[in-house]
Amino acid sequence: MYPFPKLFIDPDQVRSNISDMATKASKSSIEFRPHFKTHQSKAIGKMFREFGVKGITVSSIKMAKYFSDDGWDDITIAFPANVLASSYFDSISENCELKTLVISKEVVERLDSTLTRPIGLYVEIDPDYGRSGIPIGDVDSIRSVLDAIDRSAHCYPAGFYCHAGHTYKARSKEEVTEIATRALEKLSTLKTVFPDLPLCFGDTPSCSVLDDFGPVDQISPGNFVFYDWMQVRIGSCSPNEIAVYMECPIIEKFPDRKQVLIHGGAVHFSKDSVNIDGNLSYGEPMLKHLSEETYVKSLSQEHGIVQCSPAVFDQLNVGEIIQIFPIHSCLTADLMREYHTKDGKVLDHMNG
Amino acid sequence: MYPFPKLFIDPDQVRSNISDMATKASKSSIEFRPHFKTHQSKAIGKMFREFGVKGITVSSIKMAKYFSDDGWDDITIAFPANVLASSYFDSISENCELKTLVISKEVVERLDSTLTRPIGLYVEIDPDYGRSGIPIGDVDSIRSVLDAIDRSAHCYPAGFYCHAGHTYKARSKEEVTEIATRALEKLSTLKTVFPDLPLCFGDTPSCSVLDDFGPVDQISPGNFVFYDWMQVRIGSCSPNEIAVYMECPIIEKFPDRKQVLIHGGAVHFSKDSVNIDGNLSYGEPMLKHLSEETYVKSLSQEHGIVQCSPAVFDQLNVGEIIQIFPIHSCLTADLMREYHTKDGKVLDHMNG
Repeated sequence: MYPFPKLFIDPDQVRSNISDMATKASKSSIEFRPHFKTHQSKAIGKMFREFGVKGITVSSIKMAKYFSDDGWDDITIAFPANVLASSYFDSISENCELKTLVISKEVVERLDSTLTRPIGLYVEIDPDYGRSGIPIGDVDSIRSVLDAIDRSAHCYPAGFYCHAGHTYKARSKEEVTEIATRALEKLSTLKTVFPDLPLCFGDTPSCSVLDDFGPVDQISPGNFVFYDWMQVRIGSCSPNEIAVYMECPIIEKFPDRKQVLIHGGAVHFSKDSVNIDGNLSYGEPMLKHLSEETYVKSLSQEHGIVQCSPAVFDQLNVGEIIQIFPIHSCLTADLMREYHTKDGKVLDHMNG
Repeated sequence: MYPFPKLFIDPDQVRSNISDMATKASKSSIEFRPHFKTHQSKAIGKMFREFGVKGITVSSIKMAKYFSDDGWDDITIAFPANVLASSYFDSISENCELKTLVISKEVVERLDSTLTRPIGLYVEIDPDYGRSGIPIGDVDSIRSVLDAIDRSAHCYPAGFYCHAGHTYKARSKEEVTEIATRALEKLSTLKTVFPDLPLCFGDTPSCSVLDDFGPVDQISPGNFVFYDWMQVRIGSCSPNEIAVYMECPIIEKFPDRKQVLIHGGAVHFSKDSVNIDGNLSYGEPMLKHLSEETYVKSLSQEHGIVQCSPAVFDQLNVGEIIQIFPIHSCLTADLMREYHTKDGKVLDHMNG
């Protein structure tokens, strides 16, 4: 038994999650441009090819390089262009069709003045999420960015990119649908103003729950490839659709407080958490009968404390392994830096 | 200008922080056994040698190996022994005096039955923190663990280890002192029962704030080497004692909401946060005039959003770099995996 925290992947479930999303996109004649920031793995990237994926999405220039080196030649860096990093865009092969996001005409102009390769620019639209992008109703600003792209020497318009991250606040399929539908309605209005520009949309909750994507031409969800306990709580998936889990050794038991100490902390899981009835959970033990009494109650650097129901506490033993769904699989994978399969294979991660 | 997030260290401030703590320990004739989990760096470890440090503390067997390979030969793994990992303890040179923690006699017995090398065992005592250890008043359990150590073939008693992590809930020097003093009073009682066993104590808030350590023989704080914004809020240090900071490029500005988008997210800072007047802060911009209006309001994987006062917002420009104190320097360093100095040196991190 491996005595340290280890991240496992179920390749069959990964393929099933990819297949479901690819089928959904195909049915609506939408281009499926999955976000690879969740897995950051060439091996898992290859699984997407089995389902016809050609264009992908990443979150950094470094990640674009990682995947273009593996033969991907149509990549969106779904992060607003960093004017200081123009030479890094240039480092990616011209054989790769590279796109990124912009929000202001000033950035388009500064980028264009330093670039030496062509680059597609999506105008990022903020659908009331409040993180990044031009507010969806601000047509004047949108038009001024598009005009700057038209005037540029190296840039061409790739369309609109829209991440409705506020679906993460939802706690049911109905709430996800409501938030996503509101965003799609506003995007429909935008589409009537700019009918020729493709619209890329795609947070995992919206893409998992919606069947009708209205004006959307492309989707770029990422987390769905693994899902995690946060997505279960949001309403995006069921527990049996989660394709990754941690194995952690049980170090000690504390009978008075029905808590178990595991080796598995913030440097393994990340400190992301989800609020469940007023308690923060940092992980969800994989039990036959899931119970809200049993959850990862706290994490420090290497320590994890699992709060247990009395019945679960009695079943757990020091020197055994406990399997735990991560709260946020993207961050857990980023920390664990490799994936193990039950038949002993090891899959790469960009950080490995 | 480096266009991506980068972690900087101020070696003079690091040495000043080490010097202060070493002097404090020396004045009280306490052994200073600093925790190296914060920096995880051989280069920074060497700075501790300048101040006479011989024994150190780490949080994992892997980290013990990292530092024993660099010549450290008196190491405490301040994590309860993992009975599945006995062979990994054996992998560390017998020339290194190795100690770790135990909480139950069962673990002592299982460990002893599989070990082939000698190991010192601290009995971990819980000073009402509630994470790990035998409750401080439970003398019977403490005695039964000590008896098991006496009966063992490979283990010897190293003393008591006590981490008063509940000082992290404090928000002033007075509160830290109150929590730490309560713990020390209880440890004094324990010391009267077991006068011959050394007592190792040491969270950063207690060690930073206390001058009189009562019954304590050894201290093992870690975070003080860098400090961070959480420690400022706790009352452990002042902002000018923080020895690390992030540099992040400013990507875009959002005038309506006085927010700035930076490249710097959860994969750089970690998702640790501190609650300041009801708002979670994920980082504190280093400004001449610190203001509670300006803080890192949210982090996603690569995005950081800095909420600004109107004056600060006007000073920040796209394409410039912003310097930010991390909330929790241990986790930020663990993610960034190397340290840069202003004169261009790069210092190692175990994850690098």
